[in-house]
Amino acid sequence: MTLTRFSVKPLSTMTRTLADVAFARREPDLVIQDARVLSTYSERILAGKEVWISGGRIAAVKPAGNYRGGGAKLYDAKGGIIAPGLVDPHIHIESSMVTACAYAEAALLNGTTTIFCDSHEIGNVMDVAGIEAMLEDARHAPLSIFLTVPSTVPATSLKLETAGGDLAPEKIAALFDKWPEALALGEKMDFVQVAMGDERSHAILAAALERGRPVSGHVYGREFVAAYAASGVTDTHEAIDREIADDLLEAGIWLFLRGGPPTTPWHSLPHAIKTITELDSSHKRIAVCTDDRDAEDLLLFGLDWVTREAVKAGMKPEQAWSMGSLHGATRFGMEHEIGGLGGGRRADLVLLTYDLKPVSTWYGGELVVDDRKIMPVLDAALSNPYRYPEAAYHTVKLPRNLKLTPELPTGPVIAHTIKTELPGITLGHVTVELEPANDWQTHFDRHGLCFVTVVERHGKSAGNVAHGLLNSFGLKKGAVASSVGHDSHNIIVAGTNEADMQIALDAIAAKQGGVCVVMDGEATAMVPLPIAGLLSDKRVHEVAEEVKALKVEWEKAGCTIAYMGFNLIPLSVIPEIRITDKGLVLVPEMEIVPLFESV
Amino acid sequence: MTLTRFSVKPLSTMTRTLADVAFARREPDLVIQDARVLSTYSERILAGKEVWISGGRIAAVKPAGNYRGGGAKLYDAKGGIIAPGLVDPHIHIESSMVTACAYAEAALLNGTTTIFCDSHEIGNVMDVAGIEAMLEDARHAPLSIFLTVPSTVPATSLKLETAGGDLAPEKIAALFDKWPEALALGEKMDFVQVAMGDERSHAILAAALERGRPVSGHVYGREFVAAYAASGVTDTHEAIDREIADDLLEAGIWLFLRGGPPTTPWHSLPHAIKTITELDSSHKRIAVCTDDRDAEDLLLFGLDWVTREAVKAGMKPEQAWSMGSLHGATRFGMEHEIGGLGGGRRADLVLLTYDLKPVSTWYGGELVVDDRKIMPVLDAALSNPYRYPEAAYHTVKLPRNLKLTPELPTGPVIAHTIKTELPGITLGHVTVELEPANDWQTHFDRHGLCFVTVVERHGKSAGNVAHGLLNSFGLKKGAVASSVGHDSHNIIVAGTNEADMQIALDAIAAKQGGVCVVMDGEATAMVPLPIAGLLSDKRVHEVAEEVKALKVEWEKAGCTIAYMGFNLIPLSVIPEIRITDKGLVLVPEMEIVPLFESV
Repeated sequence: MTLTRFSVKPLSTMTRTLADVAFARREPDLVIQDARVLSTYSERILAGKEVWISGGRIAAVKPAGNYRGGGAKLYDAKGGIIAPGLVDPHIHIESSMVTACAYAEAALLNGTTTIFCDSHEIGNVMDVAGIEAMLEDARHAPLSIFLTVPSTVPATSLKLETAGGDLAPEKIAALFDKWPEALALGEKMDFVQVAMGDERSHAILAAALERGRPVSGHVYGREFVAAYAASGVTDTHEAIDREIADDLLEAGIWLFLRGGPPTTPWHSLPHAIKTITELDSSHKRIAVCTDDRDAEDLLLFGLDWVTREAVKAGMKPEQAWSMGSLHGATRFGMEHEIGGLGGGRRADLVLLTYDLKPVSTWYGGELVVDDRKIMPVLDAALSNPYRYPEAAYHTVKLPRNLKLTPELPTGPVIAHTIKTELPGITLGHVTVELEPANDWQTHFDRHGLCFVTVVERHGKSAGNVAHGLLNSFGLKKGAVASSVGHDSHNIIVAGTNEADMQIALDAIAAKQGGVCVVMDGEATAMVPLPIAGLLSDKRVHEVAEEVKALKVEWEKAGCTIAYMGFNLIPLSVIPEIRITDKGLVLVPEMEIVPLFESV
Repeated sequence: MTLTRFSVKPLSTMTRTLADVAFARREPDLVIQDARVLSTYSERILAGKEVWISGGRIAAVKPAGNYRGGGAKLYDAKGGIIAPGLVDPHIHIESSMVTACAYAEAALLNGTTTIFCDSHEIGNVMDVAGIEAMLEDARHAPLSIFLTVPSTVPATSLKLETAGGDLAPEKIAALFDKWPEALALGEKMDFVQVAMGDERSHAILAAALERGRPVSGHVYGREFVAAYAASGVTDTHEAIDREIADDLLEAGIWLFLRGGPPTTPWHSLPHAIKTITELDSSHKRIAVCTDDRDAEDLLLFGLDWVTREAVKAGMKPEQAWSMGSLHGATRFGMEHEIGGLGGGRRADLVLLTYDLKPVSTWYGGELVVDDRKIMPVLDAALSNPYRYPEAAYHTVKLPRNLKLTPELPTGPVIAHTIKTELPGITLGHVTVELEPANDWQTHFDRHGLCFVTVVERHGKSAGNVAHGLLNSFGLKKGAVASSVGHDSHNIIVAGTNEADMQIALDAIAAKQGGVCVVMDGEATAMVPLPIAGLLSDKRVHEVAEEVKALKVEWEKAGCTIAYMGFNLIPLSVIPEIRITDKGLVLVPEMEIVPLFESV
């Protein structure tokens, strides 16, 4: 059987049936008995209820014991809490390195039944074709997946990097017109250009606004908030403290509080939530989201975990769950369909423990997870996933005989090095004077350096290769490499010697994508990512295991920042210095500098 | 100059300009200085602010004193509260007996800048043509008027009454497709049929749902709530106590708490609001509305008054104003445009006293009311209103020589009388035994009766006339009559003698509509309603004066229920007995009974 978003028919075709069931003129398919209901509408927990379900939708929530028929399946909630499935208003599937179909497994285990995803990574690699392939993937997934159309591809411009995608306003407009699930414009990341009135950026905003679609945002810096809001942006997930959270809220912007694994810099929820807990804002326009999760963290730190973090920060459980479900649904105009246990809504439900841990999940009335284990119906759906088109498996296009390391300087030079530092987002621009030496290793030992090289892989510029030097990265030997190099996703290789770097590059080319660690001529860990060089085609637990093993080898290699931080090294919009296939980019100046300057 | 909803251009065309203004690269048009801002987003009052406006939209809310340019108009709020204009999520313009253009004046005086109206009265008279004429009227009005498409025309069926309109599902679908301001389906009043699965009712629901339009409701009785919600209805304004309010909220239905003049039965807010104040529900899905107001009450008991009633009932002022603005906007998917002071929103603003009394109003950045007086720009707009098509002025089509009173029974009979009682909504079914008498007056004196007659006026059934007897109506002499006879709007005449009744009917026919009182052969009060027999073409204060004078004469005549209650006498969906042009309708049985039965 297929189990997708489309397994539940549109409400417009079901109202008479549901009215019949609600009035007990017709048997429900399923009754969940003896439940406490978490109401996201009133933000109360209602004891002594039962939920009547028909055709995958909620026909009625009635007093417990009301059902006396004999035709319905029964599920005994044993006094547990039944709540609506979680709605994640902002995520990137690609961060999990799994397909939409595989993502669904982790989401359902965590009680998430709807996500709003922004597929801008695959857009950067494959342009519209990649986004459309992922939309097809999403349509086959046992999860409700809506698209916020990637708005900022490429992240900068052709002058600074070579991307596989270039989403001009017309292409974005066409995506809206073709795909009804394209509900909003995805995070408009070039907030400086937006605030400055850049023509292309505003043409993209107009494509969404004139179609009545909401615009999602991404903004840092209180000075940008007013102009950003005035440009039509109505949500953001980047509030890092209570002051900017306050500013955003007052500018009419919905806040998605992002929870991330606590060791990462993405965990801004505890700070931003203080607009509620300390500054007394209403929480009615505040939701929670995950944004990015690798496959391992996706299982450990789902949106359910984020709602629990909101409770930890001071929200009542009913409020927190509402922020995790109804509020995101309301923001995207979907509250008639999801986010609560109202009549006619999809029966996307979760059975929760008293501390908001999901135990069982129903997707469209179908029990897909019970007692934290997936049911055969879900397993069957996941075993027969969407297959990406062949072109998606051939996106790593490398020329031969690439020179992966720079020439050893013969005289004294000044090198522009890239200093990695925790938590791994911003990178320092440090100039280092290199006295002549006989080999690179001498420089590396003296200054704490290693090679970093970016190789263009879209087959667009006949093998651009840019050389740089990482400072304080900690890699003592071997090489690490990734085909996930934000946002253009060229291949990034760091290493202490060209041989290991070449092996790493070859390993990625052989798999058509991946992240790997190479030591002494051998790959010690590899996460193959054959789809667009970004996604595995395995199930989520397998990928999580691969990622876990990668992290062990990554740490063994001495790398001071995690692989997700490493993947950001080419992201030429975050200060201070980055490396793309075009060379070293000074971010504040938006200019390219040579690696070496003469003293 | 024209001043309409369209005076402010779409945001999609204005984002660059607004970003420029927000970043102070360009002068705003207007700065409202020294304001406290009532934030409907955070539900706080923010001191020390100023509002920058450009092209009729909000470019930014900044700290007071921030503006230092010289090009903008300045308005000194002198520390007063600036709040978003009110949004009325459910009203019927026809109840005010004025056009949409005229309605705007009263609304703006009361700080209301957006209304969602359901024009089902004119739909009952003129079918689609009437609705479309009112939509044109609305487009010419200096007010943002959106339509909730009439869903239940006629209220019952041709068997029970003759209406001028018959809105089949296809006509409703066509209205949605033609008029972008048709945002939702209007109140589905036939809640019993909906709950029972009636085919036509559900086809109408489907027309809205398959277009993604919300469905507004109208439901009494806790037993109907579940089936009604399961049928896709997502708001109602008919909650009469905290228990049904609770049920509705939990069924996923937005609540519009209706405030009405305190002497009327429409003032359900104080009861229903207890779901918040006593049962601890969140107020985030609760708005306030007015529903029906005559021209006089419209000026005295606007939506601003209703928000103050919410404060009186225990809400914080910031919450109450939010329920009067943002919440209605959110319910209809318009919060990106109205309901708060966010960037890019329409500059529909109100200056308030500390007890929430509107002092000044800006509509699309234009100061239209200042210090409670309308400004010349508004006066000019109101002096040049939309003119309804000629056909709208010819809707009272009466045959000649109508017999307005029943034959005097020659033997003893049982009469089915209609007992009027306060508050004037339900009508009692009282059988009265009439012993033979020489004239009607003897019966009237003995039993407290008078005539009531309904005359078909749509020219559809060659002059159906139905005779009945009102019981306890209190009319001692003369006649009263109205062309507003819900919902089919045939002409209803009550009187003690045929001569005065005929004069009343003639007066209405001469004006092509109206409400009047006739004493001793002369009309002592008359509100002419020449448009569809429902609306005046005068300005709101004039009509208010006429209504005031009518009420004086109405009371002098001794009528025990107000004229608005009188207008409901033919409304064949409210218990227990009604009279339509087809005769006396027993509501529970949905059947017609003769006036007299032999003993």
